[in-house]
Amino acid sequence: MAQQRRRVRGFGFSGVHCGIKHGRTRDLALLVSDRPATAAGVFTRSTVPGAPVLVCKRKLKSGRARGVVVNAGISNVAMGEQGLRDARSMAGQAALAAGCSEAEMLVASTGVIGVPLPMAKVESGIVRAARGLDPDGLAKAADAIRTTDTFAKIAHRRRRVGERFVNVAGIAKGSGMIEPRMATMLAFVMTDAAAEPDLLRGLWREVTEETFNRVTVDGETSTSDMAIVLANGACGSRPLRSSRGEAARRLRAVLLEVCTELAKDLARDGEGATKLVTIEVSGARTSLEAERAGRRIANSMLVKTALFGRDPNWGRILQTVGAGEVRLDLARTEVDLCGVPVFRHGASTGEAARRRAGRRMAAPEIGIRVHLATGKARARFWTCDLSYEYVRINAEYTT
Amino acid sequence: MAQQRRRVRGFGFSGVHCGIKHGRTRDLALLVSDRPATAAGVFTRSTVPGAPVLVCKRKLKSGRARGVVVNAGISNVAMGEQGLRDARSMAGQAALAAGCSEAEMLVASTGVIGVPLPMAKVESGIVRAARGLDPDGLAKAADAIRTTDTFAKIAHRRRRVGERFVNVAGIAKGSGMIEPRMATMLAFVMTDAAAEPDLLRGLWREVTEETFNRVTVDGETSTSDMAIVLANGACGSRPLRSSRGEAARRLRAVLLEVCTELAKDLARDGEGATKLVTIEVSGARTSLEAERAGRRIANSMLVKTALFGRDPNWGRILQTVGAGEVRLDLARTEVDLCGVPVFRHGASTGEAARRRAGRRMAAPEIGIRVHLATGKARARFWTCDLSYEYVRINAEYTT
Repeated sequence: MAQQRRRVRGFGFSGVHCGIKHGRTRDLALLVSDRPATAAGVFTRSTVPGAPVLVCKRKLKSGRARGVVVNAGISNVAMGEQGLRDARSMAGQAALAAGCSEAEMLVASTGVIGVPLPMAKVESGIVRAARGLDPDGLAKAADAIRTTDTFAKIAHRRRRVGERFVNVAGIAKGSGMIEPRMATMLAFVMTDAAAEPDLLRGLWREVTEETFNRVTVDGETSTSDMAIVLANGACGSRPLRSSRGEAARRLRAVLLEVCTELAKDLARDGEGATKLVTIEVSGARTSLEAERAGRRIANSMLVKTALFGRDPNWGRILQTVGAGEVRLDLARTEVDLCGVPVFRHGASTGEAARRRAGRRMAAPEIGIRVHLATGKARARFWTCDLSYEYVRINAEYTT
Repeated sequence: MAQQRRRVRGFGFSGVHCGIKHGRTRDLALLVSDRPATAAGVFTRSTVPGAPVLVCKRKLKSGRARGVVVNAGISNVAMGEQGLRDARSMAGQAALAAGCSEAEMLVASTGVIGVPLPMAKVESGIVRAARGLDPDGLAKAADAIRTTDTFAKIAHRRRRVGERFVNVAGIAKGSGMIEPRMATMLAFVMTDAAAEPDLLRGLWREVTEETFNRVTVDGETSTSDMAIVLANGACGSRPLRSSRGEAARRLRAVLLEVCTELAKDLARDGEGATKLVTIEVSGARTSLEAERAGRRIANSMLVKTALFGRDPNWGRILQTVGAGEVRLDLARTEVDLCGVPVFRHGASTGEAARRRAGRRMAAPEIGIRVHLATGKARARFWTCDLSYEYVRINAEYTT
């Protein structure tokens, strides 16, 4: 039953071990729609993008795609012409095996930089993955795209959109950054809703901006980050065209739900994380200042170590906001930690509140609320704390 | 002899214990010229500046000052009107004790945020400090402005400027950020050179931009950061007016030497640091891109943990540059670690080079050189690695 609830009509999924990673770990995933689908993607803005990013951007100009082939273990970055050939070849093999045209097959890679893909292994993996495509295979696909992730990230919702029920399922991986710890943000969302390419593109940009773009573990953007949505219309509705109708609003809402769950899981599973931290900034002068304040809090090494140490340190929070040249009215600024007011009227609310907040910070989920009192703009971010384990994971690899 | 070499004619220095810190630790410094001096300062751009920052900015509009009184232990930030009264009162007491006008006395504080200064203790400390002013007291003053610094930072040079020899001495403190670990970047430089206020202001802006503004430990700017220069003309020259002459060029060069030494010491003594890291970016399209690339490398948690782990990880260096949307020509990009080329022609230079770089990274000073091959702009930064000790220092304080 649990698996059935994760189906999306017309989609098959698989995850296999092709041999890039050691042992029997799954390292190749395939996601395919049995019929044409519309598609949209958002990509890393890195000036050193991986070859798959370049290939997907080009293909998605059409607004249509049938599936994605993904490998984990090697990221296909900084490999020049060979990287592009390999990415195109992976997509071509997957299209052949899945029975669609090469132009409809997207490709993604995550893992070590600067190492060539073992194409023979990848190709034989693709053939097996295509043979194993399964409407109930989402968990295997989610498992196969992991690198340093400690758990597979899957979200699924079934909701009414217009006159039909639609399914939206997503998988994602995190969660630090790059070689040799092999992390990249990848997210793939599949729905049986029907939407025209332009509408889907617009919704996807908005939804990813509010979800994946609001997660930060260490302030880095990898060379391979991508988030892709495929909508195959298997629910039977006519394709949505306008973003103004109730149905589009509902589709947006369910995409938002799925992506929010995945985004929170990415932060929760940040390298070395012991806590999921939700940051709510309000009362900012502009959206940009709200976002800057939230991003600074989320990336501040001083805030993140304080969270790890369960230290209700409003001083570090306000200091990093101030350092970001964000306007605040200190006398009316408010800081709450885990629901406890710790800063009001330009000063600490006292030792008792501080101790209460400190006790609540032992929980695995922590909320930081900051009201800047200079306007009405808001922003929300998810992050994690900075622990000894983060340092260990990222420093341990020595030559 | 060593102490005599640190004299600056006409200046007296002292550092005493006034009782803000526990034990007998020095926590109050006084730096005073026995004659009028020109002065300039650069300050934090935080939107939550400490009261001393506001007071000094106002006083320095005149371009003249005789001295600075500094306390460590409490930063006088987020204290509203009381904070301003206390800062003005500290300066007033110090002026009275040192025999100059209040307008000529600057003030600085560093330490815990949101706690009132014990003004009675501060005042009695100021009286003792003024009594103890000593041409050889620079080391005591440098000691008294420390917070988490593991060593006092002093630099001194004697160089010919125009027809006379001038002395330039500086003290500074770092080195993480804020409450409760009580760190703020403060630097005070004294010279017996003679310079008109406008010239001094211009030189100081340039010199601090190339030195203190190129140090980053954790990417934070404190609420109290300031760097101040005082020039009392005791060398006997006529005041320099124009930045174009040879003498001004020489004064700039010696200020740069002193500030570079202090800046490197700030990075070397960053919280938890095991290594001083010098980052040289060249071949950038614009100065802004060079600076952004350097700053991103210096602040990247992934690069900093790799340095701690002696991992010659060019992938993380290029990834963070790329994520900063800095243009690079990957095929012609060069990365050297400790003088060893590790990335050329779009790829790793191989395992032997990697191992050689890794061995050299055991040294206490590490150089990173990145050539972006898209232009001619350069930038240099100093930083330190990210160790378990950084996390311990900043997470350990729990309620």
